[in-house]
Amino acid sequence: MNCNTPTDIGFSFAGFRQRGGGTDHHEDGFGIAFFERSDSGRLGLRQFHDNKPSHLSPVADLINHHPIKAMNVIAHIRKATTGEKNSLANTHPFVREVWGEQWAFAHNGQMTDSFIRRTQRLHDNGNAEHYSPVGMTDSELAFCYLLNRLKSTFKSRPSDEALFAFLTAQCRYLSANGLFNCLISNGHWQLAYAGSLLFYLTRKAPFGEAHLSDGEMSVNFGDLTTDKDKVTILVTIPLTKNETWQQIAVDECLVFQDGDVVFRDTPSKKTYLSIEDGIALARSVGASV
Amino acid sequence: MNCNTPTDIGFSFAGFRQRGGGTDHHEDGFGIAFFERSDSGRLGLRQFHDNKPSHLSPVADLINHHPIKAMNVIAHIRKATTGEKNSLANTHPFVREVWGEQWAFAHNGQMTDSFIRRTQRLHDNGNAEHYSPVGMTDSELAFCYLLNRLKSTFKSRPSDEALFAFLTAQCRYLSANGLFNCLISNGHWQLAYAGSLLFYLTRKAPFGEAHLSDGEMSVNFGDLTTDKDKVTILVTIPLTKNETWQQIAVDECLVFQDGDVVFRDTPSKKTYLSIEDGIALARSVGASV
Repeated sequence: MNCNTPTDIGFSFAGFRQRGGGTDHHEDGFGIAFFERSDSGRLGLRQFHDNKPSHLSPVADLINHHPIKAMNVIAHIRKATTGEKNSLANTHPFVREVWGEQWAFAHNGQMTDSFIRRTQRLHDNGNAEHYSPVGMTDSELAFCYLLNRLKSTFKSRPSDEALFAFLTAQCRYLSANGLFNCLISNGHWQLAYAGSLLFYLTRKAPFGEAHLSDGEMSVNFGDLTTDKDKVTILVTIPLTKNETWQQIAVDECLVFQDGDVVFRDTPSKKTYLSIEDGIALARSVGASV
Repeated sequence: MNCNTPTDIGFSFAGFRQRGGGTDHHEDGFGIAFFERSDSGRLGLRQFHDNKPSHLSPVADLINHHPIKAMNVIAHIRKATTGEKNSLANTHPFVREVWGEQWAFAHNGQMTDSFIRRTQRLHDNGNAEHYSPVGMTDSELAFCYLLNRLKSTFKSRPSDEALFAFLTAQCRYLSANGLFNCLISNGHWQLAYAGSLLFYLTRKAPFGEAHLSDGEMSVNFGDLTTDKDKVTILVTIPLTKNETWQQIAVDECLVFQDGDVVFRDTPSKKTYLSIEDGIALARSVGASV
């Protein structure tokens, strides 16, 4: 979620968490990172990770019962493909500090064996000096690869334009070395890269009613919002059936800020996968959608 | 807490959280980091941070009601002296990844203005390349200083002996530049450095009963433990009255592993502050005990 006003993710999370062992099989833990603003506007990060399936987790109950209003949220439910199940160290989102900002990252996909071996070798030889994975997933390895490239290339924070162009190029490289869908946020912006399947929806005035695909829940956002609110939700597979979700093209990179698209890099030839084809592609490389 | 078997910190936390706005005035948020072992023995980190006072926080309720069994825990209740109150970015423990390990850090004290200015200048000039503070506290600045010195000195992880000696020297430097009590853990060991006040207690067989100083709560650890369990609790001010707490000397550094002291560096002249003198010293430099 990326929005222009502190927003409670409760409705989307209520549907999403059901996919963690309820309506779907992503039952090997979950994680969620909330970027919140203090009274003076300073960003802070609150993280929850649990190795229990999200549809049963007491931590997920807390998130549902005590709504947290945030500017940016990244949530991930895990189906273990690489690395131990039920291990906290393997649950996304992964977080690292970059130039005094917290960066959160979630990945859906599967990096190739040759990428994993090559990148692991860089770490073993001491040539990945800034960041190293804590857990055993290909995803955290890809995140550390991307951040090591970033810190080696820029001594200090570049302009947003240079940063987004650089991150797009790195995501394209990662997508060429595996199945790579990701979300990255520093709390100010949220970057979405679609290696296969990724959708988004921007809710703004006039707000209507939404019905969850994964549960008996509806909400009329008109009752909960002001006319100025703008809230963008990004997901692998749409959470509601009665709203029009936009699909991100394969190998397209978008960056959102205050609920709006502020950067877009689209491949010259736009392609879109059907949800069925996206799921089949994930299965064929041993990943999970 | 540092122990040799996964242990629930519930009893100590029940007393500790009362000091966050209940029996004491540390009401500007709290944080707690749990290092847990997965089934295969791999360490993961679960963090909770809240900008609400710990004695009222729903996050603290969750921790009390759903006991989490961990090998190492660092908890901190905050009384803001430097940096905005009620800001998530300013709540301890601070966490950074070091050589593929999560390191958690909590500080009690106050760094001098000249240390803050000097260290801030290193960051502004790009001479603190590995870690930068996210929030506005002197504590996170001290932690980043220590980790930047560590990464600049050792390209890869040194032996524990070399590491503990280096960390002791850095803590001594920080203690000479402010009031500096700290706890640091990578999940395997926990380092305690006493700039003024720090106590510890090791509970092991034969286990007895303990009564909280901050609430109407007693527990007979004999009912909850096995004869092999060894659990060390480290605190600024003892949590119970009927047990014998060991005081750590001023500028002494201890490292605990599996509940035992595995490293100790004591100044040639041992001094101990009374709790009253420790509180007075903290107040005199604008810190809070």
